[in-house]
Amino acid sequence: MKIILVGASGDVGKTAFEELSSRHEIITAGRSSGDIAVDLASPESVEAMYLQTGPVDAVISAAGEVEFGRLSDMTADTFRYGLENKVLTQIGLVLAGLNAVNDGGSFTLTSGILDRDPVLMGAGAATANGALAGFVKAAAIDLPKNLRLNVVSPGLLEVSSDQYGAWFPGHELVSSRRVGLAYAKCVEGAITGQVVAVD
Amino acid sequence: MKIILVGASGDVGKTAFEELSSRHEIITAGRSSGDIAVDLASPESVEAMYLQTGPVDAVISAAGEVEFGRLSDMTADTFRYGLENKVLTQIGLVLAGLNAVNDGGSFTLTSGILDRDPVLMGAGAATANGALAGFVKAAAIDLPKNLRLNVVSPGLLEVSSDQYGAWFPGHELVSSRRVGLAYAKCVEGAITGQVVAVD
Repeated sequence: MKIILVGASGDVGKTAFEELSSRHEIITAGRSSGDIAVDLASPESVEAMYLQTGPVDAVISAAGEVEFGRLSDMTADTFRYGLENKVLTQIGLVLAGLNAVNDGGSFTLTSGILDRDPVLMGAGAATANGALAGFVKAAAIDLPKNLRLNVVSPGLLEVSSDQYGAWFPGHELVSSRRVGLAYAKCVEGAITGQVVAVD
Repeated sequence: MKIILVGASGDVGKTAFEELSSRHEIITAGRSSGDIAVDLASPESVEAMYLQTGPVDAVISAAGEVEFGRLSDMTADTFRYGLENKVLTQIGLVLAGLNAVNDGGSFTLTSGILDRDPVLMGAGAATANGALAGFVKAAAIDLPKNLRLNVVSPGLLEVSSDQYGAWFPGHELVSSRRVGLAYAKCVEGAITGQVVAVD
């Protein structure tokens, strides 16, 4: 398969690359690294990426940003940031890619554990993750060309624990290998409309 | 209890009023009707509402708008509309109300069935509903003063079926009485961080 991987340089994106790159042609994309420069917040940039790649068999997004913080420090803008930069960005990648992905192909997005196993700093992330869960459940039944759509929802990765571990007391870390398998399940398997949790 | 009910004039808001008004003092609020005029999209308007009511024991929101449509007709703006007008509005009502609600009080928001039982026109609604589910799950563990936070997620109401029924093939309609009970469970009960489904 020919696969676009957005966010390949992050801890999560690397797991998908490690798992899939030996069996498939991976075109990496990202804001500041990768084969193609793309800014998911810009519809024009996303369109240009699909024009540059030509038809593909799968699109994986491991890109997205949210703001972390205590509820008492948050405003609507805190939540808006995650909805814009983790949810609407990934939704836009799907909408713009409906024509670019070949019949029977797939989109695999990335959310995270915090909407099912919350932590004090994570209300913004939980809101974004929940939105993505709702999106894939509903959008999957309205896709053309037998396209499939899923979201991988990993717990905190072992390799990310130095940076974020203090916010996740008692959470079991997940290995990059297990997270990579979730992307393989979505891309090489046949499921659709699913949240693939890696806990 | 003294309870603010935003969106009291809608089909869903009416169920909460019918169930709770005989036992509690309900202050209704809405954009175009109710005891107090409020625009949830305006933080200043929400602040003014809480100043006008003074301290309350519970806040119920049955307000929110999304755009319905087929995925192929949607853009990121379609989803943004629902995230702004159903999600960030209700989140703003909670954030602004943390000081206005008395110790042990509660917030009860409203989502809907489409993130767990999708229909073709409903990807925008499903995305907003999922976001609200993630929000209450995470924000509930970071509330001060023993405040509680839940979201009622009703199926299509019998009284709304003339307007929306064609988009919900095979969905069992729910009675206003059952939906009203869900608000009573959230306001008069003790649960928090829950999606209260009425299917």
